[in-house]
Amino acid sequence: MSWENTNVLITGGLGFIGSTLAHDLAELDASVTLLDAKLEDYGANPANVDTIRDNVTIVEADLRDVKDVAPYVTQSDVVFHLAAQLSRTVSNENPATDAEINCQGFLNVLSVAKSATDSPRIVFTSSQAVVGRPASLPFDETTQAAPLDVYGANKRAGELYCNLYYESHGVPTVAVRLTNVYGPRAQLSNPNYGVINNFIAAALRDETLTVFEPGTMKRDFVYVRDITRGLRCLGFEQRAVGERYTLGTGDATTIYDLAEAIVDTAGSGSVKLVPWPDDWESIQVGDLRSDPSKMCDHFDWEPETDLTEGLVETIDYYRDNLEAYL
Amino acid sequence: MSWENTNVLITGGLGFIGSTLAHDLAELDASVTLLDAKLEDYGANPANVDTIRDNVTIVEADLRDVKDVAPYVTQSDVVFHLAAQLSRTVSNENPATDAEINCQGFLNVLSVAKSATDSPRIVFTSSQAVVGRPASLPFDETTQAAPLDVYGANKRAGELYCNLYYESHGVPTVAVRLTNVYGPRAQLSNPNYGVINNFIAAALRDETLTVFEPGTMKRDFVYVRDITRGLRCLGFEQRAVGERYTLGTGDATTIYDLAEAIVDTAGSGSVKLVPWPDDWESIQVGDLRSDPSKMCDHFDWEPETDLTEGLVETIDYYRDNLEAYL
Repeated sequence: MSWENTNVLITGGLGFIGSTLAHDLAELDASVTLLDAKLEDYGANPANVDTIRDNVTIVEADLRDVKDVAPYVTQSDVVFHLAAQLSRTVSNENPATDAEINCQGFLNVLSVAKSATDSPRIVFTSSQAVVGRPASLPFDETTQAAPLDVYGANKRAGELYCNLYYESHGVPTVAVRLTNVYGPRAQLSNPNYGVINNFIAAALRDETLTVFEPGTMKRDFVYVRDITRGLRCLGFEQRAVGERYTLGTGDATTIYDLAEAIVDTAGSGSVKLVPWPDDWESIQVGDLRSDPSKMCDHFDWEPETDLTEGLVETIDYYRDNLEAYL
Repeated sequence: MSWENTNVLITGGLGFIGSTLAHDLAELDASVTLLDAKLEDYGANPANVDTIRDNVTIVEADLRDVKDVAPYVTQSDVVFHLAAQLSRTVSNENPATDAEINCQGFLNVLSVAKSATDSPRIVFTSSQAVVGRPASLPFDETTQAAPLDVYGANKRAGELYCNLYYESHGVPTVAVRLTNVYGPRAQLSNPNYGVINNFIAAALRDETLTVFEPGTMKRDFVYVRDITRGLRCLGFEQRAVGERYTLGTGDATTIYDLAEAIVDTAGSGSVKLVPWPDDWESIQVGDLRSDPSKMCDHFDWEPETDLTEGLVETIDYYRDNLEAYL
């Protein structure tokens, strides 16, 4: 795969996955533009791109203003659409904002791509939230949509937008359902984003990692570098156009085991089981585990970093950079 | 069914279906509030409620401003959500506006309903646009979503919102997929809304009804009074809560035959076949015909007005009120 001189736009480029992908692509000599609205609490962190600042272009713009983003979409060969409202809790408390960012914002990207003389490829990151509480596991890209939260419903809308802009307007779109992604560069302290990073923050501060009883709920935790390697396939390979994929490890770990592994790796912190808060129960979805076979079949993609190794790399990163993430 | 003293809110209440439903419910002594943003070109027409003006409350408010609509949703027993961006063409030209009205606007209604002490029932009108070009006909409420336009994708999001607000938050929602609805009180002259009404306008002005070649595409044309009778079931019957239905006749008529029937009924106008405009082809979806069996099984609902009779009533109405609709 040669990315040399390819014009790449990453929306949400200062965030966790977007900035990690930017590191990959800058190293591969792509011409990388990072677009980010820097919304408070949404995960944008300039520290994420400190070491590649001279190799990328950073633009502060909000996808909700189509005219602000149009020139950047138009001049791209590939757009990785990572910008999103990411919290299920926030999506239920403020559903209109979720729709504004995750529906309107993405539609703005697609409509500009449609109007471009040479439409850029659009890689859309969907979520396991689309499948809700599936009848059987593992789930994959064909599993019926049955979201239990507004976030999941709007991510499903995004998948449908991908289909129709490809089918009806010829925009080369790709959608991919992600499981629970962890790794360096995620924000640590916002309780609405990712149990794993909250746990790491607690462990590094030698605090208690609070696991809701009985802690046996399983999730498919996937390391961010495996995700960005998968995204690069989807941005590059011709076969991906018009398709939908699933990116996860295919394995699952209980929340309790995850917390213990983090405490062990960090060498600090402790794990405590506590009762579920009443108001959280309604959005719990039981176990989740993905089947990423289609990625493997089409592109020989496989997860390469197991949880033990991924936690070591993640905790090492935050130990060295903790100030920037709290 | 007694609607006496039931507090009913109809969003889009000055529009075609909303105002027709208002006539029904005012006659049944419901306490009816019509909420409408009166957006230009969206079908709101004060003439639609001229004869019931003293029996209903009319509020001008936009669903996109949650605080403006919250009090009206909160104090309702039943909300019929008819307000929408309705044109597939507009949805593709201005997708963000479609999402703003059809996603955000509806989410505002649902989130207010969720927060209410006693959540009103929400009846959501979805569309056959959700199913796109189905693999087989007839389609129904279980047919897989595969929208070919942003309008259909966002209507699908609305269906998913209904499911999740019911499942996760206990809001009593009902969704219903409508086919091509026609009848009195639709706007006649906007080319983006409904072939049937454009045809009627042309016939009444003794103009040419332009049918795109070969005119053999079939649609399931359903009379608006059959729709509002169905909507009243869905707003009233306990069995409907948490369910999704389909409302159509189960029959289909070609566009050419429709045009001829309109010319015959009006006694004026003529039909002409012309080539498809190039840019319209991409959103054509082939034939469509619904299966409304679930409505029939659950509520003994059946379409009562056939196309011939419906066209007579519709054309009679517009002949008497043409000024108000051009």
